[in-house]
Amino acid sequence: MSVVEERLTAAAGRLFYRQGIAATGVDSVAAESGVSKPTLYARFGTKDALVVAVLRERHRQRRAALEDHLRAHAALPPIDRMLSVFGWVLDQQRGEGARGCPFVNASVELAHAKDAPAREVIGRHKRWFRGVFADLAAEAGAADPLALASRVHLLVEGANARMLAEADLTAVDEARRIAELLIADACPASPGVGTDREAR
Amino acid sequence: MSVVEERLTAAAGRLFYRQGIAATGVDSVAAESGVSKPTLYARFGTKDALVVAVLRERHRQRRAALEDHLRAHAALPPIDRMLSVFGWVLDQQRGEGARGCPFVNASVELAHAKDAPAREVIGRHKRWFRGVFADLAAEAGAADPLALASRVHLLVEGANARMLAEADLTAVDEARRIAELLIADACPASPGVGTDREAR
Repeated sequence: MSVVEERLTAAAGRLFYRQGIAATGVDSVAAESGVSKPTLYARFGTKDALVVAVLRERHRQRRAALEDHLRAHAALPPIDRMLSVFGWVLDQQRGEGARGCPFVNASVELAHAKDAPAREVIGRHKRWFRGVFADLAAEAGAADPLALASRVHLLVEGANARMLAEADLTAVDEARRIAELLIADACPASPGVGTDREAR
Repeated sequence: MSVVEERLTAAAGRLFYRQGIAATGVDSVAAESGVSKPTLYARFGTKDALVVAVLRERHRQRRAALEDHLRAHAALPPIDRMLSVFGWVLDQQRGEGARGCPFVNASVELAHAKDAPAREVIGRHKRWFRGVFADLAAEAGAADPLALASRVHLLVEGANARMLAEADLTAVDEARRIAELLIADACPASPGVGTDREAR
């Protein structure tokens, strides 16, 4: 991606996330990026193609950021690394305006068949995120890592929805505490999880 | 609400949900409802006011439908009634196109201060839904009914997001199974919940 394309996708990504895709005109993307409208069309052709480019770039950045985060916490036991992803989600949200998941939000506005390439990126992002949890769940000794990963990821989705609809940033910590219970349920030998499993 | 207003909010609600609010022109609401555009403006003034009316009407209908559902299942123990809400959510989704929660979806497109009345309805709907779970949780003997209700509701939000973004209707059943665990954790004396609590 060229520098101009990076500026355009970064500006469009910010505006789409903050105010919605349909509510964001190509004019305001050009103004926000400092790139001319003819250049925008020369690079992306259509607004639909720009939406797909934004989602692809967002996926690439999220993936790189979470990989960095997990590398920085490589010394932690796998369960703690899994739980630390919730802190990472909260940090991402705080940095971006706390409007939930940009991929889910895009889904709201991409209802039509013509948006198939965007939906493909959305699905890929979700599968990747569950895959991160599945690797950690396997490392933690979960009996069914994919099932645990899907459950933990569903909690992230719930927290994102609540942040968006109710501006409630505590939802992420609530989701993390539910995740502790699910992990304790799925990883019978797991030490160091902050639930009352032992007391039962 | 007059018959004409009911037709307009019903048509607008269907279109907003299916294709998004910004993507739905006032012309298509008029066409879908069979009501003229001047009449639409005479009744609602602006599209923003129509959005608020749609959300209020959707809240009223959802509330009535869930109250009917719970009355029809009044003979069940409170925990089973709580879990039956997930089946009700799935039925609603199947009947409407399975694009998740219309109130969360509206939040994506209502980013601006001018949409404060819509956001008020969205918040009210969410508090009402948690309140339904809280009443059932109290009846089931939960130590902290509001905390359990908030957790169970977060699962509904997660399932809705996954249905929308990944067209995965199994998410509701997955959320229900997590809810069983959370209920077992919060209602120590609860009988008849399908988890392996007793085996621990």
